[in-house]
Amino acid sequence: MAPTPHSPGAGERRAGHLVIIGGNEDRDNDKRVLRRFVELTDRPDPKIVVLCAAAASGGPAWKVYDQAFADLGVQQRMALEMASREDANDPKAADRLLTADGIFIAGDDQKRLLAVIGGTLVHQALHKAFEQLGRCIAGTSAGAAALSQHMMHGGGAGVPAPGTAHSLAAGLGLLQRVVIDQHFSERQRLGRLLSVVAQNPTLIGVGIDEDTALVIERSGGGLEVVGDGAVTLIDGRQMSSNFLPGPEREALELVDVKLHLLPAGARYGSAAKAVPSALQDIVSILTSPGSPLS
Amino acid sequence: MAPTPHSPGAGERRAGHLVIIGGNEDRDNDKRVLRRFVELTDRPDPKIVVLCAAAASGGPAWKVYDQAFADLGVQQRMALEMASREDANDPKAADRLLTADGIFIAGDDQKRLLAVIGGTLVHQALHKAFEQLGRCIAGTSAGAAALSQHMMHGGGAGVPAPGTAHSLAAGLGLLQRVVIDQHFSERQRLGRLLSVVAQNPTLIGVGIDEDTALVIERSGGGLEVVGDGAVTLIDGRQMSSNFLPGPEREALELVDVKLHLLPAGARYGSAAKAVPSALQDIVSILTSPGSPLS
Repeated sequence: MAPTPHSPGAGERRAGHLVIIGGNEDRDNDKRVLRRFVELTDRPDPKIVVLCAAAASGGPAWKVYDQAFADLGVQQRMALEMASREDANDPKAADRLLTADGIFIAGDDQKRLLAVIGGTLVHQALHKAFEQLGRCIAGTSAGAAALSQHMMHGGGAGVPAPGTAHSLAAGLGLLQRVVIDQHFSERQRLGRLLSVVAQNPTLIGVGIDEDTALVIERSGGGLEVVGDGAVTLIDGRQMSSNFLPGPEREALELVDVKLHLLPAGARYGSAAKAVPSALQDIVSILTSPGSPLS
Repeated sequence: MAPTPHSPGAGERRAGHLVIIGGNEDRDNDKRVLRRFVELTDRPDPKIVVLCAAAASGGPAWKVYDQAFADLGVQQRMALEMASREDANDPKAADRLLTADGIFIAGDDQKRLLAVIGGTLVHQALHKAFEQLGRCIAGTSAGAAALSQHMMHGGGAGVPAPGTAHSLAAGLGLLQRVVIDQHFSERQRLGRLLSVVAQNPTLIGVGIDEDTALVIERSGGGLEVVGDGAVTLIDGRQMSSNFLPGPEREALELVDVKLHLLPAGARYGSAAKAVPSALQDIVSILTSPGSPLS
């Protein structure tokens, strides 16, 4: 069925661009990832708000990003620091978020980020800015992990011992049906991402290297990889696995997992390049807008 | 076509057991990997020969394995140290190898191992012991990497920069159509194994964790994983990739790689467990005897 003129079609994305950064992005030299984020605001003089709620003190992160965005020529820069849920339920904070052309979610601890803003006015404003106003949202490290509905938190790097499980928590929900892991190659996180996918085979595992971003584009529903490393996608939907809950769980066996390695510079689904058939399904999952919270 | 009575059938393996160890196997405590190797010699009082040719000095490795095999109750233990190709072309050394029930190839540097024994009488004796006499052969670390026809040597852990390639060298050739990498999880070697498979899509990538062995069984053509970690199989035969030789090579893109994670304790193709259909092809590749050198 052809889309009606005013509703989004299958390949069309109403929400803004999403820039999912694997942490430790360059802030001093070429700043490729941050530069792309600023470009994607699509404004000549964009206003960037840096959301500092994942760290106990937002000051140090703000100082770094204030300087980096200034170096990139951004005139309008603002920190949104919040220490408590009261701060995150302040209508002024939510309004400030809605004035941003680009929202940058700094890292540290995704559990803290969600504990402070989950379900608050600021969380609702984030959804509105992204889904209704089409603003560009970036998250780095913990801020990247938190973007999806199901969020990794804690756990070692490897495949867990039998009888244990990596647990998932409720994330910000700007993306559905994926689970995001950051510092991916640098912290040897394939094992843990595989085990999360084994336990949650409805989710696509997205592993993002440091100084690398997966960009999910607003229009045309394309993907882009920016920066220095690669994005690893783990698709376990057709795998067979011995994972079953219960105390007598065995060591994890996975057969027939699909893995895709997308390097920086790769683009799919935009005008630049056709989507390989094996990736079409995943591109369609990633570019489906999240269900609005509010 | 049905196999004739005296030729090996499709699922039957004439050669001995192969115990491919990812390095750093326990030698002090439970010694699960070494114990399984001793069991697989199928002798009540086995004679174990430790081939020390991958290190400039075989003494230290021999001391460790002499003690470990003694602890496991092995009475007949012998080192085969060799410092030069002259040593490896000594008919006495080759004869000594042929008297062993189990041959253990110690690690260090697979390039040195091949430089010393490649094409020599000792190399021929290794093939004869394995393929004609059905003796059990183990290799650890460099000794594991060297077992296959195509051998990894050197290179960093990650995906190489565009324009460079991980090179392969000629290994001992006891296994065909695979490339083996060791210390796999511990040294973050997925990236390099993926890039080797991208460049050599006819080879199945076999990544073996430390204190873990992939056992390729003599009879019945089964696989077994022993020890503490897991074996990761990378099958790129159906992938699409942008890898092409040439100076203008791009960063590596891989779409539709198959990954299998086999934990310690897993057995396939023996009486214990049926082979999952997605693994049948790989089990058949791994259990096909290598082509004899001599």
